[in-house]
Amino acid sequence: MLEIICVGNELLIGKTLNTNAHWLAKHVTSLGLTVRRITVTRDEVDEIAAVLREALKRKPRFIITTGGLGPTFDDKTLEGIASGLDRKLHVDKKALDMVKEKYESYLKQGKIDRVELTPARMKMATLPEGAEPLHNAVGTAPGMLLKVDSTSIIALPGVPPEMEAIFDESVVPLIRKEAGKSGFFERSIYTDRIMESNLAPLIDQAMRDNPRVYIKSHVYTEGSQQSSEGRPHIEVHFSTTGQTSRSASERLDKAIASLSRLIENNGGRVKPA
Amino acid sequence: MLEIICVGNELLIGKTLNTNAHWLAKHVTSLGLTVRRITVTRDEVDEIAAVLREALKRKPRFIITTGGLGPTFDDKTLEGIASGLDRKLHVDKKALDMVKEKYESYLKQGKIDRVELTPARMKMATLPEGAEPLHNAVGTAPGMLLKVDSTSIIALPGVPPEMEAIFDESVVPLIRKEAGKSGFFERSIYTDRIMESNLAPLIDQAMRDNPRVYIKSHVYTEGSQQSSEGRPHIEVHFSTTGQTSRSASERLDKAIASLSRLIENNGGRVKPA
Repeated sequence: MLEIICVGNELLIGKTLNTNAHWLAKHVTSLGLTVRRITVTRDEVDEIAAVLREALKRKPRFIITTGGLGPTFDDKTLEGIASGLDRKLHVDKKALDMVKEKYESYLKQGKIDRVELTPARMKMATLPEGAEPLHNAVGTAPGMLLKVDSTSIIALPGVPPEMEAIFDESVVPLIRKEAGKSGFFERSIYTDRIMESNLAPLIDQAMRDNPRVYIKSHVYTEGSQQSSEGRPHIEVHFSTTGQTSRSASERLDKAIASLSRLIENNGGRVKPA
Repeated sequence: MLEIICVGNELLIGKTLNTNAHWLAKHVTSLGLTVRRITVTRDEVDEIAAVLREALKRKPRFIITTGGLGPTFDDKTLEGIASGLDRKLHVDKKALDMVKEKYESYLKQGKIDRVELTPARMKMATLPEGAEPLHNAVGTAPGMLLKVDSTSIIALPGVPPEMEAIFDESVVPLIRKEAGKSGFFERSIYTDRIMESNLAPLIDQAMRDNPRVYIKSHVYTEGSQQSSEGRPHIEVHFSTTGQTSRSASERLDKAIASLSRLIENNGGRVKPA
């Protein structure tokens, strides 16, 4: 079980669409772990600290934060994590080496004139005590890993390619170890000529007959004035977790066949994805 | 102050991008209210109830939920709200009239053969005690408004055009009453030839000189392998709240001029939006 905490006023004023949460949820799920909650919070130390403490109480195996690791005044995630855990911040030697190395490579590439460790740059190497930095192959600010009891807290940058690179390099191995071989499997069918309210009892029955498959309907909206019931065009999403893709596949096949039959017997039309 | 709670497993498995939260955050902010937190939770009664109770403790003026109002088994938001508030659910007469009226119009349009109030359809008219339904001009399931102490809890459907229609018709007037004439004003400039870590202290200074303006840098990523520091191309976003657009505009102008000067004095280039 895993929680995601996204830090950034830009998400709360509707300036930025939260594609990071979407990307992380998709990747974590496909690795076989369950995302229990996503929380979006402001660039404020007390808020970040409070959200972290609340998440820790639910004892998830992982908490992944995004955003707030950069050099500007409003990058407050590590300060918020330190405050939430009552830990001090300190300049981490390994993190400082990572930051230095980046600026040295920028110097070599002629992008800067000299390597100067300004306060804004030192900030990116300032971690809560007990944390370790995670290598950032794309940008400057390292990620962070900190274990607290049974929870691993992982802080990733908000810039999407940096977040994705650290996730792929350092987080995937940790999640794989936890999730083992279990995986998430999903498939969809599309149906029309049946209303969602008439589909509802059929889904209930198909789920009773296929207890390990979760079935959820999603109303399609083509154009902004289409109603769910006025012009029924519905995606039905089937998902299951399992150790092998073959057994999962068989379960999904069976559930799809049984719901498709029910839909057709009730006047609906089924189109495979 | 306002909180958003989005209900739906599809958001937590990374199937659906949370455009509803983005749309709501943008619209609420432009009406002059602050969105403090967005929480995404699963289609589970206990989780929805817990998230609602936690949000109520923070005493926001509004809590807006999205999703989980439809006819299927996993539409559990109203049950979650009732459980979180220790209230009973009951079939609301006004809501039932709204649902009936919809099916009668579908009958007239020849979309259905007869109006039958199945359990799945009755479910959409089943509200927590003390709630009132909100008219849904686009779809079938009514929204819901329920006041608890100083907080108005508003439940909206997850289908975007239905959510937007109820927001525009019933929620905007409530928010306007609360926010009064205050509004949110924003503008951006774009800069390059300066790294974010060098921009950081300049933003600090511009914010000290322009205390009512919030300035935040956003690193642009063109293509997925662009680094924030490797190829600096940065949006700087200025925002302020105020009663009149003229005074807000003047404040933004002044802050943009002062930061632009600082950037140019430090070798950066500024391009207006």
